[in-house]
Amino acid sequence: MTGRDVPGLVERARVGDPRAVARLISLVESGADALPEVAAALAPHAGHAEVVGLTGSPGVGKSTTTNELVRAYRARGRRVGVLAVDPSSPFSGGAILGDRVRMQDHATDPGVYIRSMSSRGHLGGLAAATPQAVRVLDGAGCDVILVETVGVGQAEVAVASLADTTLVLLAPGMGDAIQAVKAGILEIADVFVVNKADRDGADATYRDIQGMIGLGERAPGQWRPQVVRAVAARGEGIEDVLAAVDKHRGWLADTGELRARRVRRAAAEVEAIALGTLRERLGSVRHGTALESLAEKVADGELDPYAAADRLLAAL
Amino acid sequence: MTGRDVPGLVERARVGDPRAVARLISLVESGADALPEVAAALAPHAGHAEVVGLTGSPGVGKSTTTNELVRAYRARGRRVGVLAVDPSSPFSGGAILGDRVRMQDHATDPGVYIRSMSSRGHLGGLAAATPQAVRVLDGAGCDVILVETVGVGQAEVAVASLADTTLVLLAPGMGDAIQAVKAGILEIADVFVVNKADRDGADATYRDIQGMIGLGERAPGQWRPQVVRAVAARGEGIEDVLAAVDKHRGWLADTGELRARRVRRAAAEVEAIALGTLRERLGSVRHGTALESLAEKVADGELDPYAAADRLLAAL
Repeated sequence: MTGRDVPGLVERARVGDPRAVARLISLVESGADALPEVAAALAPHAGHAEVVGLTGSPGVGKSTTTNELVRAYRARGRRVGVLAVDPSSPFSGGAILGDRVRMQDHATDPGVYIRSMSSRGHLGGLAAATPQAVRVLDGAGCDVILVETVGVGQAEVAVASLADTTLVLLAPGMGDAIQAVKAGILEIADVFVVNKADRDGADATYRDIQGMIGLGERAPGQWRPQVVRAVAARGEGIEDVLAAVDKHRGWLADTGELRARRVRRAAAEVEAIALGTLRERLGSVRHGTALESLAEKVADGELDPYAAADRLLAAL
Repeated sequence: MTGRDVPGLVERARVGDPRAVARLISLVESGADALPEVAAALAPHAGHAEVVGLTGSPGVGKSTTTNELVRAYRARGRRVGVLAVDPSSPFSGGAILGDRVRMQDHATDPGVYIRSMSSRGHLGGLAAATPQAVRVLDGAGCDVILVETVGVGQAEVAVASLADTTLVLLAPGMGDAIQAVKAGILEIADVFVVNKADRDGADATYRDIQGMIGLGERAPGQWRPQVVRAVAARGEGIEDVLAAVDKHRGWLADTGELRARRVRRAAAEVEAIALGTLRERLGSVRHGTALESLAEKVADGELDPYAAADRLLAAL
């Protein structure tokens, strides 16, 4: 039908063909047309990977930390996928931009797949494409998927909500603790990493964020965000970060929260897709004659706009 | 049913009771619950008034110009309604804010109704409430309704689209001509008013905007925006503004564009209401059990999110 052999691509991706993985992600990036077919082919293979989100302001050392986390997971023999999501970047596709170059450490490792995504040119935006890209990497047999996003804005919070465990990186002297509270980051962070912990002010940042966490109310059995110090550029503290992620993973599994989170995530995704479809259908009705004749009746005072909307919906 | 006698209010508004008008506008401002009932009661009385939009950056003299336009329309014996819409203001309801005080010139005139509206506390926002408030004033027998908005942003363009004729105010030395092009104002303006025309730079502003209009392509018979000079603070040029509005009105009537505009406006309004209703229904389904069980199937890999969205829509 589509001229794309999606099931064939999924089969090749599942045995580790990086070009098939790249092609599938390009398909989900390209928009609504291909998404349902790719999603259907991937569904049976979903839910295996551990999804770890990583966010923080520019300059806190996200790429360096991601790079070191990849190294550490590889040392444990795990296959790793990285999605570097930049809502503001016009670049997409390759793993070759800016300090992503440092990731070339892993360029020849068949157990690592790295992909940059940007919002430019995405039908439906990153919000629609990113969950599907995670599914591609999941279906392709990644054990861990790191989703790295810039900043602490709304788009980033949305992307972070894809993760089972969300890491928020801070660095000394950036006023990040206050910023984190303002941006609602405190609500989404499972683990805080105070990176560049060898710099002046690192202790103050550590204390600040611990203080913020202490102020938050949480029910018994609820997760209390961990705070870890690291100097990613020297590989220091990375094992502590992994230990905190593993501890959170254990808590997710023990409490049933892992499944609950994934169900909530799926619900939000299904709802967004349904709303998009409704908007499209209404558009089709609009371009037909139903809305036109209803609007004429409203303009002539024969019908009020609410009654007209009801009739439009009945015609849907 | 609702404890509000909406038909009774409409009857009282139609014979000029300002308190009934105020109550009806408050009802449409208060949100979705009352809107359908008020809209239904007003529909038979709609389409009489001439709706004139008036927008421009802060400081160009919108209130002063509105005030003078009201005076001129009253001198012609016409009943006038004024909606002063400020998307950024927290104040609503009274006609007592800032330079609106100047409007008190007309406070004791039963042929003038003045109302300020802001977005604070509006369910569905000004975009939903303003067209209905226009309907209230229309139904209450206003011959002319002036809708005054601040600025040239997206919200203002949306509100301006309510009008049969849109006036855009400029003042010398504000770089407004360029701003107007950037903000897409050139597309919505039917009449430009270069206010404060006694100041330095007024000629340059006049030439700039004429130049911009000259650059625009328009089909034969299409309206070419008029440019008028005024010094509203001294009442100068107001008759020229009215003449340009009347000329545009004549063009609207002769070409059938008046009805076409009102039908387009009604179509956009009906569509927005329908989309809002769909979003609400989806919310109800979500809070039921349908989405929950679908989301579980997606989380477990039994269903892909697009297939789940299809089933959700089928349950709607």
